[in-house]
Amino acid sequence: MSTQPLIALLTDFGLADAYVGTMKGVALSICPQARLVDLTHAIQPQNVRQAAYVLLTAFRHFPRHTVFLVVVDPGVGTAREPVAVETTVGTYVAPNNGVLSYVLPHTTVRHAVALDNPAYHLPGVSQTFHGRDIFSPAAAHLAGGVPITELGSPLPELAKLPDPALEIAPGRVRGEVLHIDHFGNVITSIGHLAWAGDDALELDPQFGDQRSETVRLHPNRCRVRIHDASLDAIRRTYGAVAPGALTPLVGSSGQLEIGVNQGSAAQALGAALGDPVILEFDS
Amino acid sequence: MSTQPLIALLTDFGLADAYVGTMKGVALSICPQARLVDLTHAIQPQNVRQAAYVLLTAFRHFPRHTVFLVVVDPGVGTAREPVAVETTVGTYVAPNNGVLSYVLPHTTVRHAVALDNPAYHLPGVSQTFHGRDIFSPAAAHLAGGVPITELGSPLPELAKLPDPALEIAPGRVRGEVLHIDHFGNVITSIGHLAWAGDDALELDPQFGDQRSETVRLHPNRCRVRIHDASLDAIRRTYGAVAPGALTPLVGSSGQLEIGVNQGSAAQALGAALGDPVILEFDS
Amino acid sequence: MSTQPLIALLTDFGLADAYVGTMKGVALSICPQARLVDLTHAIQPQNVRQAAYVLLTAFRHFPRHTVFLVVVDPGVGTAREPVAVETTVGTYVAPNNGVLSYVLPHTTVRHAVALDNPAYHLPGVSQTFHGRDIFSPAAAHLAGGVPITELGSPLPELAKLPDPALEIAPGRVRGEVLHIDHFGNVITSIGHLAWAGDDALELDPQFGDQRSETVRLHPNRCRVRIHDASLDAIRRTYGAVAPGALTPLVGSSGQLEIGVNQGSAAQALGAALGDPVILEFDS
Repeated sequence: MSTQPLIALLTDFGLADAYVGTMKGVALSICPQARLVDLTHAIQPQNVRQAAYVLLTAFRHFPRHTVFLVVVDPGVGTAREPVAVETTVGTYVAPNNGVLSYVLPHTTVRHAVALDNPAYHLPGVSQTFHGRDIFSPAAAHLAGGVPITELGSPLPELAKLPDPALEIAPGRVRGEVLHIDHFGNVITSIGHLAWAGDDALELDPQFGDQRSETVRLHPNRCRVRIHDASLDAIRRTYGAVAPGALTPLVGSSGQLEIGVNQGSAAQALGAALGDPVILEFDS
Repeated sequence: MSTQPLIALLTDFGLADAYVGTMKGVALSICPQARLVDLTHAIQPQNVRQAAYVLLTAFRHFPRHTVFLVVVDPGVGTAREPVAVETTVGTYVAPNNGVLSYVLPHTTVRHAVALDNPAYHLPGVSQTFHGRDIFSPAAAHLAGGVPITELGSPLPELAKLPDPALEIAPGRVRGEVLHIDHFGNVITSIGHLAWAGDDALELDPQFGDQRSETVRLHPNRCRVRIHDASLDAIRRTYGAVAPGALTPLVGSSGQLEIGVNQGSAAQALGAALGDPVILEFDS
Repeated sequence: MSTQPLIALLTDFGLADAYVGTMKGVALSICPQARLVDLTHAIQPQNVRQAAYVLLTAFRHFPRHTVFLVVVDPGVGTAREPVAVETTVGTYVAPNNGVLSYVLPHTTVRHAVALDNPAYHLPGVSQTFHGRDIFSPAAAHLAGGVPITELGSPLPELAKLPDPALEIAPGRVRGEVLHIDHFGNVITSIGHLAWAGDDALELDPQFGDQRSETVRLHPNRCRVRIHDASLDAIRRTYGAVAPGALTPLVGSSGQLEIGVNQGSAAQALGAALGDPVILEFDS
């Protein structure tokens, strides 16, 4: 563990109460030298899948020793276990409800434990705020160098979310809207996409356990369909079309995204989470 | 004072301007080694009582040497004094408008001073942003080790908010809605409640200067009434009832709370701050 | 560069995604000892001018060695250059779109470079998230002590925003609404104003390249007009008028501001960005 341990927080607690601040007070009481970074606290209440996706976009960009403290926990106080998972790319503290299942396939798991050792809980654990009483103390003890195997007993299996829609056929991939960001960009389950020169894109369809062979496509010889819109050509950036115009592009995490130059694609399209999206291309 | 001094910030400044960031710039200019943690900046504008309650939920979970920088200040620039209060559980910097009055009864006050020593203000104090010009410098100097008695003259009396409604009769406590959190949980002035085994709750009615004898009640032999709703049984957690159902429970700060499993109780009940809440139980 | 390098972040990314958190992960991967402070992430999407103003209110209150990481970037991925500018009051990393043009006239520029040295980019720069791939790495390298001239080639000219409206005549200044803050205070382009005793204000009209001679005015012998309202007297603070009443005052950055005691002036006036404001005074 580094001398500058890092804890990255992701919750659905919002910023209107002192819930997040209280978790930080607990963490700094246990591990005063920890650095704390917020991923976001604006996950929709109890939306485990959205949290799983947002974590997926961020985890690679943190130092390897980062402890991710992820508390989106509709089942707080029920039978779902609190867990800690040590991997090759970060250590994760979370409820065992699938919130880690988009990230873990991109790592190698070294240890997974249930947080059942009460010596590492706050005294007098509440039934409604495990973020404060169980998860934050666990993250702080891990950041401070306590071996993960001290925190509880080994957990043979971690919960999984269903994989997002991703149907792959020759010349056609069908996915769904996975996330709508602050700017109204519509981010889909279709990826991983990467530019391979000016006139070529590599599409390596994968999500969770789904995976298919990599294909190459021409950015001007494809079509993206969502609702009634049919958009030809994948462009490099928002500014490649006129202000107010829609365009597909390769999002910053390699997912197919639909944006509007200086506007909101979600609003222009009336798009919502789960809406089907189709990418067709010459194969 | 620790070598890792900690300043926890609580304001109604919101996050849309750079007001909070500016206070942090000032604090770090004075005390570069300070750690800064946000409690919340989303207190309703000028809602001193909400700030007092949110501070109460958080203060115990921070290290003892924490400096709490609390700026909810409808009277900025008028006669209300800026103050600093050193206690056995944290040091507080705030306007003298009662915002500390829910926390202070839980501590022992060692020193209280008016921040009237201009040597510890920013030069050219504005009339509209004492957070930047008086409160943040005071917090930073305290965090850096300046004795509180240097910051100003002793203050014999601190302002108090009226205590929240809490009427205690045999088998019946009448309180009010004190806070509605980000999830729509309805938090009341009735507490402190704690589980004492599976079939027993201890109720130690207290708030501010109000206090009554501890009673024991059975979680299934009580009733919570708010508006037209009459809810029997206090449950351990949201997930103890069906999704969408209302239930009373013991909140994470020991207050009686009404929640909805995976939903908003405030919305379901149409509850607002100040609404009366009654707890009846077999005595 | 200090042993406690400081990076202050200002973006329009909001806090609902992990975009800001990801930038912080990148920065701490490169410069683990950096301190990170948020100015705000709630700039209206692509509103370069609002960002320029908010930066102007904050920059003076940070330590001189602070690196300001400013990402409001409607042209991401197009020809506008990413730049770094070292000045006598902070170092700035931003797109070259004018977002620095309100601050720079208050500093002396030592170096300005285009961030065109790919050795200081993340590998595989995206076309849609230069905040993560170019700006945050640049800020972190600067915070860590890399000389600015290493980051890219000298840039002879920086983009400028048009100056805000500020027409100065004897006894009359015409400006515009520049910002509406979280409390609904209406902040104008008319300034810099400062109290010079109880009965005198000094007005030193300036903004960007606009500048006029300092005049002295009496706070009770002037009038502020906006929409249909005509408000006489500039007061020291909100609480100098009755709750709910409108009053002009000297804002915390020295701009003429219109506020309401415990209320929202923007709502009371129906004011919007760009609305004309007139200050008349006996000269």
